[in-house]
Amino acid sequence: MERFARHFQEDLDALKSRLLEMGGLAEDRVRRAVQALVERDGGDIDRVLTGDEPINQLHIEIDDRCFKLLALQQPLAADLRAVVAAVKINTDLERVGDLSINIAEAAKRYITHPPVKKLIDIPRMAEIAQLMLRDALDAFVRRDTALAQRVLNEDDKLDALKTQIFRELLTYMLADPATIEPALDLLLISRHLERIGDHATNVAEDVIFMVSARDVRHHAHETGVQRG
Amino acid sequence: MERFARHFQEDLDALKSRLLEMGGLAEDRVRRAVQALVERDGGDIDRVLTGDEPINQLHIEIDDRCFKLLALQQPLAADLRAVVAAVKINTDLERVGDLSINIAEAAKRYITHPPVKKLIDIPRMAEIAQLMLRDALDAFVRRDTALAQRVLNEDDKLDALKTQIFRELLTYMLADPATIEPALDLLLISRHLERIGDHATNVAEDVIFMVSARDVRHHAHETGVQRG
Repeated sequence: MERFARHFQEDLDALKSRLLEMGGLAEDRVRRAVQALVERDGGDIDRVLTGDEPINQLHIEIDDRCFKLLALQQPLAADLRAVVAAVKINTDLERVGDLSINIAEAAKRYITHPPVKKLIDIPRMAEIAQLMLRDALDAFVRRDTALAQRVLNEDDKLDALKTQIFRELLTYMLADPATIEPALDLLLISRHLERIGDHATNVAEDVIFMVSARDVRHHAHETGVQRG
Repeated sequence: MERFARHFQEDLDALKSRLLEMGGLAEDRVRRAVQALVERDGGDIDRVLTGDEPINQLHIEIDDRCFKLLALQQPLAADLRAVVAAVKINTDLERVGDLSINIAEAAKRYITHPPVKKLIDIPRMAEIAQLMLRDALDAFVRRDTALAQRVLNEDDKLDALKTQIFRELLTYMLADPATIEPALDLLLISRHLERIGDHATNVAEDVIFMVSARDVRHHAHETGVQRG
């Protein structure tokens, strides 16, 4: 079997730096989408809607790097877990990019109506989700399970805000049918932000598995099964 | 580097059959959740809410099988693509399991209100999503790109039904505020079903890449980059 004498660690570092770049792009798109919503800026909303090419290109490139690393370097144990984690994280980041488009689509409809309310909790949700994403990726690069655990804990905040937003918007809708249609779009946006948080927790769980070979998904007990 | 003289093809076949089993479980949970909603059966809803253990166990087991295959057999080219596809498909199926819980949660709230309407389009969405999932997995096992392509085409039907459901429910909500809260749960359920369709299309895209090394995500052109 043919082998290439390239340095695994260098390739892995390059892969990590591309993932960080992709994370930065994804985070930026979420921020722009929510900012455009708050400022009711149709031009900025359209720029989010049409601006997914760089992230899609990176998605394909990173997947390609992972395949090459697996095929040419055939990593084992912790290295193998790192590359498989990268494959999964890449998918999560691409979905975050898609969700920023979903947010922009809802924002585009929302600004055709008078504002339902001053937007405070939705930008807060966006900030928390972005921070979770950034921390999860930092945790991946630094192999920092404590930071990954903090990301998992942050998810409750998003959940609480989502519930609060739902109750508030429901009150508006019940009081005035004219708010129903735009309020539905705000509800959708809060769900999209919640899902961005879910992707950040996916990344955090992958980091914990990568570092400790311990599966924290489904709150599983240690099974004693050796992985990798 | 230590090698094991196990048969890759046998291991891959076992992996595929476990993925099919997981797909069957996921599909079954979606069907039960929507059936419990239609029949307003609180007991069946609770059984969906508490019944995710088998699928979670399979998720961990399949991930473990993939890692072992990568580490012990170090597959290349098409075989490598098949195992990485299995890692991704496993994640998608686990999310479908989660979405059946989301559907059951919304159904549980929904049946505390009088019915908004006779449910016809939501069960149709569920049927289409389940069929897409089954076809996508069959396409994976049989390496059938034509079937995978059919799954991608089916997604438009789900999208059309989702839009139709949205318009209809909006009319109810505007006409009678008492329907707002339960109608919101039906809207949520239609979104969850749409996402199940999205997971089926993810699987179909993985199948096309696995068989042809052609990346159909983001409608990318062939890049000429050799993968695997």
